[in-house]
Amino acid sequence: MSPENRPSPEAHSGSETHSSPAPHRPVIDLNADLGEGFGRWRLTEDEQLLPVVTSANIACGFHAGDAATMRRVCALAAEHGVRIGAQVSYRDLAGFGRRAMDVPADELAAEVAYQIGALEVFARAAGAAVAYVKPHGALYNRVVHDEEQAGAVVDGVLLAGGLPVLGLPGSRFLDLAAKAELSVVAEAFADRAYTDEGTLVPRTREGAVVTDPSAVVERSLGLARDSAVTSLDGRRITVRARSLCLHGDTPGAVELARRVRRHLEEHGIEVAAFA
Amino acid sequence: MSPENRPSPEAHSGSETHSSPAPHRPVIDLNADLGEGFGRWRLTEDEQLLPVVTSANIACGFHAGDAATMRRVCALAAEHGVRIGAQVSYRDLAGFGRRAMDVPADELAAEVAYQIGALEVFARAAGAAVAYVKPHGALYNRVVHDEEQAGAVVDGVLLAGGLPVLGLPGSRFLDLAAKAELSVVAEAFADRAYTDEGTLVPRTREGAVVTDPSAVVERSLGLARDSAVTSLDGRRITVRARSLCLHGDTPGAVELARRVRRHLEEHGIEVAAFA
Amino acid sequence: MSPENRPSPEAHSGSETHSSPAPHRPVIDLNADLGEGFGRWRLTEDEQLLPVVTSANIACGFHAGDAATMRRVCALAAEHGVRIGAQVSYRDLAGFGRRAMDVPADELAAEVAYQIGALEVFARAAGAAVAYVKPHGALYNRVVHDEEQAGAVVDGVLLAGGLPVLGLPGSRFLDLAAKAELSVVAEAFADRAYTDEGTLVPRTREGAVVTDPSAVVERSLGLARDSAVTSLDGRRITVRARSLCLHGDTPGAVELARRVRRHLEEHGIEVAAFA
Amino acid sequence: MSPENRPSPEAHSGSETHSSPAPHRPVIDLNADLGEGFGRWRLTEDEQLLPVVTSANIACGFHAGDAATMRRVCALAAEHGVRIGAQVSYRDLAGFGRRAMDVPADELAAEVAYQIGALEVFARAAGAAVAYVKPHGALYNRVVHDEEQAGAVVDGVLLAGGLPVLGLPGSRFLDLAAKAELSVVAEAFADRAYTDEGTLVPRTREGAVVTDPSAVVERSLGLARDSAVTSLDGRRITVRARSLCLHGDTPGAVELARRVRRHLEEHGIEVAAFA
Repeated sequence: MSPENRPSPEAHSGSETHSSPAPHRPVIDLNADLGEGFGRWRLTEDEQLLPVVTSANIACGFHAGDAATMRRVCALAAEHGVRIGAQVSYRDLAGFGRRAMDVPADELAAEVAYQIGALEVFARAAGAAVAYVKPHGALYNRVVHDEEQAGAVVDGVLLAGGLPVLGLPGSRFLDLAAKAELSVVAEAFADRAYTDEGTLVPRTREGAVVTDPSAVVERSLGLARDSAVTSLDGRRITVRARSLCLHGDTPGAVELARRVRRHLEEHGIEVAAFA
Repeated sequence: MSPENRPSPEAHSGSETHSSPAPHRPVIDLNADLGEGFGRWRLTEDEQLLPVVTSANIACGFHAGDAATMRRVCALAAEHGVRIGAQVSYRDLAGFGRRAMDVPADELAAEVAYQIGALEVFARAAGAAVAYVKPHGALYNRVVHDEEQAGAVVDGVLLAGGLPVLGLPGSRFLDLAAKAELSVVAEAFADRAYTDEGTLVPRTREGAVVTDPSAVVERSLGLARDSAVTSLDGRRITVRARSLCLHGDTPGAVELARRVRRHLEEHGIEVAAFA
Repeated sequence: MSPENRPSPEAHSGSETHSSPAPHRPVIDLNADLGEGFGRWRLTEDEQLLPVVTSANIACGFHAGDAATMRRVCALAAEHGVRIGAQVSYRDLAGFGRRAMDVPADELAAEVAYQIGALEVFARAAGAAVAYVKPHGALYNRVVHDEEQAGAVVDGVLLAGGLPVLGLPGSRFLDLAAKAELSVVAEAFADRAYTDEGTLVPRTREGAVVTDPSAVVERSLGLARDSAVTSLDGRRITVRARSLCLHGDTPGAVELARRVRRHLEEHGIEVAAFA
Repeated sequence: MSPENRPSPEAHSGSETHSSPAPHRPVIDLNADLGEGFGRWRLTEDEQLLPVVTSANIACGFHAGDAATMRRVCALAAEHGVRIGAQVSYRDLAGFGRRAMDVPADELAAEVAYQIGALEVFARAAGAAVAYVKPHGALYNRVVHDEEQAGAVVDGVLLAGGLPVLGLPGSRFLDLAAKAELSVVAEAFADRAYTDEGTLVPRTREGAVVTDPSAVVERSLGLARDSAVTSLDGRRITVRARSLCLHGDTPGAVELARRVRRHLEEHGIEVAAFA
């Protein structure tokens, strides 16, 4: 596991290290993908999720998110005091950004910067700012291992002025972002199974997704309070993350998100954005 | 004709009026559409026009202009000290923004702001900034008369923070922009015929386009020095403009642009951006 | 007026009157827009509406309808014995085809033909064929009055080999289609108010949409059996249509469609496709 | 090397084998990518290349090729008696289809069929028909080795009714097409270097592209008459192809194409389409 994945209740920049856990009350961010409609189509329950989450990954027009939706969701997020993040994607409306693309590095960097800039205008108009960048879908998965594309996304973030990035602990993306002196924030998934090594179990394997809502709620608490979760093979492992990713596009997702937040707060976890 | 179209060698905001021509050396801006390729396709002679113009209307991805092209042309413009403008358009790649669209006002405003924001990131990365906004193609023509869309473009510019706008003297667009206290800059066309009333002769009428290069060069000088041009019916009329629009997508366009600039400078006109 | 516009149970225009009803059992087609998702997004309840309607207006990719959705819905329609129609649109995914566009006639004709051709391949693969063409959204409304675009859509249909067209009685589109010797089919809307002249009350006017489900059901029967409906001002008027358009994208739409069909059948109306 | 790559001056179906070269006059097809503009943008010299080639790979709207261009080029091809092929691509206008995409098999098959159907309408309107299918750009390269995508393209061709396919000898695409009992046609590149094994030298290696026009002309003759070419390492190798691919988007391409055709004809090669 890379240095970027070391324990910290804080978002850590690549240069900092935290040798001992902070003694204060544990804090966790809750992030979700929002604004993932396009024109006539709606997908995410933006109005319902915004009171629950602390960070909104807002689609920027490449996999979802027309301009009017971006404006509306930025305004709503600002009203709720929710942090605005640019959810950047491959240019692929038809595939919802879920089809990996061999985009040359310079094009990918420019496409990432384009999306960030477009969102900034709406964040600013809402009296806020884009506070971080999170890759979406196939791009998120690709930059876990793909050196060139991970570097291109980092370059895109730098082009746009340099913002904190949110991603998978141990990914090439977070590593390279840290090397570029961007703030990096690791996230965990309470509804995904982990291997003994602390990596996500691929969706193609049985048991990759945790479907029992109560289990998801419990795992959220474990991740937030103890930086720990039970692996698919039954071992207790360490997964350090400053943010938990909630899903908003499945039936029952909103209710589950509310339960997670309530459970965290009832157990003394502070739910707060990272940036 | 509206107050915004009154004589001034300066870009005038709606609130200012200039009752007497400034005594100093006349100054004119030369603007051209640049970066109007898309992906594999090139259209405008960006490298050749940038040494000639003082303001670059850069396509922002809706009628032309992929992210990598926007980045490249912003960098080139900054190198040449050319002012960067957002050339905003209807969302219509297939029609190159030349097909008027009945876009609802809130969508249009958001689409305009989106494009400005996207360009800003590349202008900023080049050490510059987006200095003005100019509508493209069918949108340019539509906002001459269409109150609702003119207002929507103004709203989009305001959403993006408020920038000077470049457009047709007497248009609803410039009027509403001035009312919104945006800086407004009028432009003239040396290669287009004018009516006795100082409006453009519609392209559908014979003689609407001036094709003789020498005539274009002479008319440029008249417009820049004397705010005057000969109408299609042979009368000398007043057309006050702080900027001349040059075209860059026709054969011989680059050479003609060079001749215009040389001719202006040889006659003591200062060629300089407005913003 | 051409032979294609003759009295019902055939397609006919709205202005004609037919003094004697055909003696045989009345027959009506029920059409609905289907396949109006795109990629990750769903809109229409395709599986639920297909058992109810007899004609499916399938989106062809320009306002909605990715290739995989088109294939799936064509296969489902063929299974249900539902007639497949090409629901052609302006090229406007972001606006769902609801933003009128000034598309030059030759481009529009080609775009219409393109969409029909694309759908044909999936209809054929399902063992069926594209049986008719119906314009969508803003294009539907535009060709009611716009001579040039109405002619362009007809040209597009002819380019694609010539198919029956479905549209508004009295529209320029149906008139020009009839002149071009295409089969024309008039449709009526049980959930829309009519003027005394038999035209639709514009949506901007109060009362334009009939929201009471029972009223919609009754009006369906009146339109199908008697070619008659009560106008907004309370007069009984004649509206001859071979097809009724049902909506599938609002809450309760599917249930309402079922009620309409049941009511028609209980009153001895034959529900059957027109082509 | 697979059976599909065995010697034959004819396009061979997968089931046939040709143990001895036919005694008759050698025949070769010349194919080129055409119609690769989009809206305002032009790329290929369609008018100039059509008198030279015998098969036109026409872009179908996914990487290039708006509807009006497709119509125009189909009409021109039909006038010149040039065979029309569907040049199918990933959905990627911004990348011109040059960015490989991980499109799921069912989506890719549907997208291929969609493109073929759209082109068919224009081929038919021109009194012709789509005679074959050739993948473009990144898709062409991907299906050389990628079993799943190669199969998906074959499925797409079958969905569209089953047409001959044009591709690289030895590719998974041609193999699977042959297994599906599609006609398969192998093509060679006179301007690309070959390895001793008869495969193309990757573009990343020095010498991958033959830039000397005279060499290209000579290699064309060798390929067409003798099914032979000199490898990058200087060995004479066998490359059997019924078609030669000419390029039309580089300076001098048209003149080179003319020289190739003239040279072939002067040496008694019959230049004729395969289908």
